[in-house]
Amino acid sequence: MSDKNDAAPNEASDQTDSAKELPGYEGSMAQQMQQLVERGQELICTKLESYEHEASFRRDRWNREEGGGGLTRVIENGDVIEKGGVNTSAVHGQLPERMATVLGVEPLPFFATGLSLVLHPVSPFVPTVHANFRYFALGENLSDPADQWFGGGADLTPVYPFFEDAVHFHETWRNVCSRHPDVASYDSFKKACDDYFYLPHRNEARGVGGIFYDYLRSDVDELRAFSADATDSFLPSYIPILERRMDLPFHERERRFQRIRRGRYVEFNLVYDRGTKFGLETDGRTESILMSLPLHVQWPYNWKPEPASKEEQAMWYFTPRDWLNIDRAKAPEDPL
Amino acid sequence: MSDKNDAAPNEASDQTDSAKELPGYEGSMAQQMQQLVERGQELICTKLESYEHEASFRRDRWNREEGGGGLTRVIENGDVIEKGGVNTSAVHGQLPERMATVLGVEPLPFFATGLSLVLHPVSPFVPTVHANFRYFALGENLSDPADQWFGGGADLTPVYPFFEDAVHFHETWRNVCSRHPDVASYDSFKKACDDYFYLPHRNEARGVGGIFYDYLRSDVDELRAFSADATDSFLPSYIPILERRMDLPFHERERRFQRIRRGRYVEFNLVYDRGTKFGLETDGRTESILMSLPLHVQWPYNWKPEPASKEEQAMWYFTPRDWLNIDRAKAPEDPL
Repeated sequence: MSDKNDAAPNEASDQTDSAKELPGYEGSMAQQMQQLVERGQELICTKLESYEHEASFRRDRWNREEGGGGLTRVIENGDVIEKGGVNTSAVHGQLPERMATVLGVEPLPFFATGLSLVLHPVSPFVPTVHANFRYFALGENLSDPADQWFGGGADLTPVYPFFEDAVHFHETWRNVCSRHPDVASYDSFKKACDDYFYLPHRNEARGVGGIFYDYLRSDVDELRAFSADATDSFLPSYIPILERRMDLPFHERERRFQRIRRGRYVEFNLVYDRGTKFGLETDGRTESILMSLPLHVQWPYNWKPEPASKEEQAMWYFTPRDWLNIDRAKAPEDPL
Repeated sequence: MSDKNDAAPNEASDQTDSAKELPGYEGSMAQQMQQLVERGQELICTKLESYEHEASFRRDRWNREEGGGGLTRVIENGDVIEKGGVNTSAVHGQLPERMATVLGVEPLPFFATGLSLVLHPVSPFVPTVHANFRYFALGENLSDPADQWFGGGADLTPVYPFFEDAVHFHETWRNVCSRHPDVASYDSFKKACDDYFYLPHRNEARGVGGIFYDYLRSDVDELRAFSADATDSFLPSYIPILERRMDLPFHERERRFQRIRRGRYVEFNLVYDRGTKFGLETDGRTESILMSLPLHVQWPYNWKPEPASKEEQAMWYFTPRDWLNIDRAKAPEDPL
């Protein structure tokens, strides 16, 4: 029996800093990336809290017995965010056998840091959003790793989609990629996102997509710059959407559709998401892994939208589409 | 893209009878087992409907393009059952490549029939229950199959457990096994159930267990008798519990704990349950597979019971225990 659920978070302790003693950590890419994700976490939480009257992101710091730890920041029952988590971790140690096998490498020392966030808003008109940015290094010395790579992405899952919101989100991420053409490609990252966030048993995309990338290795300095730009672009990709929609009135009908759509989110995360599966199988911290699940969910049997309803129109969006080259007239009307 | 979600159920058509034309079907074990599960479905639905004022089990008949079909019977928003499904199917065809690989056999013709039920009651004091009874045959002629086996089981998932209910449920299933000692063993079936319905990432059993068995091959006549006895024993295993608890008053606190516990049920079914995973991966009928998911679910972050509360006492039950040989004084008080 593992004690993973007993690893009591400690609100009083300092930042995750046990990596400081690792060989070659000072000035390394590992250190720069850890600082980048921790700074991103702080900025994102502060901005989101500015919309809340009472709720705030609590801090759950946790330590990993084998090395490192993380800071889970969760908000619940806010005015704007129903449930959201913005987490960072920086963990290190000997690569577990199983993970070495998956990655096809020797069980060397490893270091991994990342920012991972999921926001489920109160309003059915404000989309759920997910993003993460991560760095992984293998080897004895972090100043000269045997291997290192970058991964990440951001994707949007509206309940009642607005055309303009899907376009804004994709434009933001296309622009980030365009600023780093040597390491990033919107077209291929967009396709990877569509391929990944798909529910075959529903014949549905999870939402309207975004970008997704992993195992980026060449030109690490440019990859760091891309990661920094992407982390900084999360708020501009999402906040305009949130501000446009957060005060729209909604009723029980819209809440119900929201809860049904959130069931699809749960299905994706528990059945397909590699991070979730890997975390649960390798004894990760369960509450941090499952923080991505929405607060309220419904699974009515064989639910179908009424023909020509705004719920049926919403379904049009859950097929991968080329949002930046689509005729507005071909999309359904906005759901108001 | 499959058309599984378009396979419109047809309320008007007759019983699933396309198996009648299969070689050797008349008088075969396949036919007997199909009749047994269809009769069980009818009896169970009728009995459960007797507690409802308005709700009833709707009938969704579906056909499988490759052969056979099923009858999904679902009730929703009843007075006693919040969401429940009692399904039968009888499917046949050429064993799919993937399934042949999993089973380690040649891709022969197959026939499979079974009854599968999940009931999620309204009251947090009435346990969720799951049961299924199934038969599988391989070969060209159903009167003389190349291989055939039986599987099934029943398990109870209380929200607020009562000691007497766990004992009653296990006693019923122990007695069924005792009546068929040549093919059934309560001790080993009980252990198989505990091993299977376990959530490692929570360090929790799904509920208080029951029995679980699969790939039973020897003495098919006695296995048919055991299957019939087990199917007939479902109502006596559950109805006394339902009758004792269905009228107990409850409030928002108990509903909330119920919805959190139902989150565990979803986690088990989507992350671990072989039937669910297999069904989704092999293009089964999604709505019949996911019928097992509860109607209302909640996932608050890092929920923990208050010390010494009835919710904490409930957690004592979610560890496999020898219910028929346990000192009542060692169990928590009942949750009233």
